Amino acid sequence: MAKKFPDVQPGGSLILAWQVKDKKILVVGGGEVAAGRILNCLNADARVTVVCPTSGLNDEVAHRVSENQITHVDRVFEPSDLDGVDMVLVAIDDPAASTAVWKLCKEKKVPANIADVPPECDFYFGSVHRDGPLQIMVSTNGKGPRLAASIRRFIASQLPKNAGNAIEIIGELRTKLRKIAPRPEDGPKRMRWMSKVSDSYKWEEMCTLSEEDMDNLLLFYPANKVPSVDILLALRGGTDVRKLDVFDGSFGFSVGA
Amino acid sequence: MAKKFPDVQPGGSLILAWQVKDKKILVVGGGEVAAGRILNCLNADARVTVVCPTSGLNDEVAHRVSENQITHVDRVFEPSDLDGVDMVLVAIDDPAASTAVWKLCKEKKVPANIADVPPECDFYFGSVHRDGPLQIMVSTNGKGPRLAASIRRFIASQLPKNAGNAIEIIGELRTKLRKIAPRPEDGPKRMRWMSKVSDSYKWEEMCTLSEEDMDNLLLFYPANKVPSVDILLALRGGTDVRKLDVFDGSFGFSVGA
Repeated sequence: MAKKFPDVQPGGSLILAWQVKDKKILVVGGGEVAAGRILNCLNADARVTVVCPTSGLNDEVAHRVSENQITHVDRVFEPSDLDGVDMVLVAIDDPAASTAVWKLCKEKKVPANIADVPPECDFYFGSVHRDGPLQIMVSTNGKGPRLAASIRRFIASQLPKNAGNAIEIIGELRTKLRKIAPRPEDGPKRMRWMSKVSDSYKWEEMCTLSEEDMDNLLLFYPANKVPSVDILLALRGGTDVRKLDVFDGSFGFSVGA
Repeated sequence: MAKKFPDVQPGGSLILAWQVKDKKILVVGGGEVAAGRILNCLNADARVTVVCPTSGLNDEVAHRVSENQITHVDRVFEPSDLDGVDMVLVAIDDPAASTAVWKLCKEKKVPANIADVPPECDFYFGSVHRDGPLQIMVSTNGKGPRLAASIRRFIASQLPKNAGNAIEIIGELRTKLRKIAPRPEDGPKRMRWMSKVSDSYKWEEMCTLSEEDMDNLLLFYPANKVPSVDILLALRGGTDVRKLDVFDGSFGFSVGA
């Protein structure tokens, strides 16, 4: 009876996709670690300010400053830098200065990460695979940061091509569906049908589908059906859905394609 | 020249492994969505309080209350519930009440997630694969939550067995290394050697190694060498490393195994 529910597996992290679009993130330091953090933040549409004397900027950070991708403050950290800031990332080789920033962040309730000092981190970074709307983050919970990168590369090599694109077209399917069935009372049917779509195809199959296939898929929504992949393939190139006889009793298996 | 550095890929999330051990997380609501959130939090060692009338608790949440895994407050949310709280997760079918909690959280600078209301979320959840210290989180950035779960299952099916265990033994290797080379001045050599270990083996190979292999691996640290997997296999069962002639000029390739 106690086995009815998943057992707790303690010792992990709470992995969250932080929404930082237009949020102010302060990066203290401008070296290699900072460069990695900055790219993560820019990929999530944050407004990044780097505090670091120009002499301490590495090439990548200097490049992003010159391209106006980030704001640069050409000096060492001052407490007023925290005003109006939503998140702080520190990557400097000065433990005492780092700890001082950490303490200020805790006073002001600003989430912070002090690189290489786990006790002074509200959160850790992991290794992230990115493909359009798909993000896969690998964490070893501090046991092996390089291993996390290897695992991330391994996963990327195993993923079907077009993985990100598949998510994109499924997202578009949902948007189009809302247009053809816009009423609030359609909501439950819409949700059930979208779930049926997700459950009907294997993930690898879904990566082979195109925007055209999504448009054809929508033809089956009124009947609350989901066709097999074979049927979607048979419908490509403008084949009339009525010719395929897919709405008879043998739906889903009547196409010899 | 502009191509020297990775291009920014906007539109993603900032995915972070939040460290919530012993942090207070308030969950408002006790239904199915809340049950999933609660398990995520417990797997990260958080102290969870659920505010929800007993009649609204689903079986899993009620089970965790009865097992004292979480604290239960048997009523609807009150603003004082936020006192001393580090994070808030709301999963109730009451948009007005949800928005009220969200606004209070923003006033108090408490990070919050209102389920199914993206604009009222500091962060989203994803689908997480867990294997000991290994956590892999899949986010579709809101485009397809069910798809995220399919992708997570796909990745889990592709991972080598013992993936989590491999990370565990690499973590132990690092700990043992610190014992045999404890001086602060050994730090750079330790780090270089650990990097060499990570880079020398394919991730899939590493999953075939055992604790015994790690102990044998350590024998190569003083010479700042990393043996091939073949050598590690040949050393199993107490074979004397000196017999293998691995420290001669042909190191790493001298074992016929």
